[in-house]
Amino acid sequence: MAERLVIYLFKQNPEKINDFAKSLAELKTSLRYCEKCFNLSEQNICSICSDPKRDQTTICVVEEPLDIFAIEKTKQFSGLYHVLGGVLENLAPGNTLKIPELENRLKNEKISEVIIAMNPTTEGDATGLYIARMLKDYPVKITRLARGLSTGGDIEYADEITLGSAIINRR
Amino acid sequence: MAERLVIYLFKQNPEKINDFAKSLAELKTSLRYCEKCFNLSEQNICSICSDPKRDQTTICVVEEPLDIFAIEKTKQFSGLYHVLGGVLENLAPGNTLKIPELENRLKNEKISEVIIAMNPTTEGDATGLYIARMLKDYPVKITRLARGLSTGGDIEYADEITLGSAIINRR
Repeated sequence: MAERLVIYLFKQNPEKINDFAKSLAELKTSLRYCEKCFNLSEQNICSICSDPKRDQTTICVVEEPLDIFAIEKTKQFSGLYHVLGGVLENLAPGNTLKIPELENRLKNEKISEVIIAMNPTTEGDATGLYIARMLKDYPVKITRLARGLSTGGDIEYADEITLGSAIINRR
Repeated sequence: MAERLVIYLFKQNPEKINDFAKSLAELKTSLRYCEKCFNLSEQNICSICSDPKRDQTTICVVEEPLDIFAIEKTKQFSGLYHVLGGVLENLAPGNTLKIPELENRLKNEKISEVIIAMNPTTEGDATGLYIARMLKDYPVKITRLARGLSTGGDIEYADEITLGSAIINRR
């Protein structure tokens, strides 16, 4: 990947490379975490949190900012996000997970649904269950992303757990 | 794969190889399609159709016998199957699809649910919709396998359509 980047940059004109170098240098100073949802942002509050057209009653909890990019691309979600910053290690709450901050948002914002969108891994599932338990006394609906077959996939090659979920959750 | 098979066979003792050769020769004579569900079978009626312990009110419609092996491995389904023999080509009913035979089963057996378990592809979806339309006048519930994230996968790398389905079908 480094080789491809070098060759790509080599083909660009000098101004473009200078712009790129400048952007790189500014990265650490211009980019920060959104104070509300901990997405990456160039402002104190990110463009999603500050967009009045988004559904302010639904929070989608993700592990990392990259997950937000993936979910935004689907165009199926127009609510807010909350970046947890990772998953639980050994089922004990990590110091860095933004769970207290999520609870503060439930206290201060009018949230009706929390979508737990952890990665579909053992650690993601454990973290999701932990969060669901932490939030059980708040008057919010807690949902999680569906498990099932991947579009364009093949039943024959689906793993057993996924195919099992697809059968159990048939609609 | 052929090389691996040759090396494997070379390591076996002669009796085992002879047995294997005999089985191969008998394949076309001993294996046939189940008269009821069109699964591969050594009897006229396959071991699944003739198992009284299975749920006789649910039929899972699949494209190929291999899909049955995959679903059986999940241990999440204990009903009967119906092998369609493929998918529609160009949205016109192919001559070989066992749809009339499926309708006959709905007339003659006490079926309450038909699970459409086509592969999650364009052709599979089209075939599933076609079957659902063909069966709409029968008093059966028609379901399909869930779409969503694969267990052990990663939100960041999920395709947009699958991730979109996982959001829409959250539970």
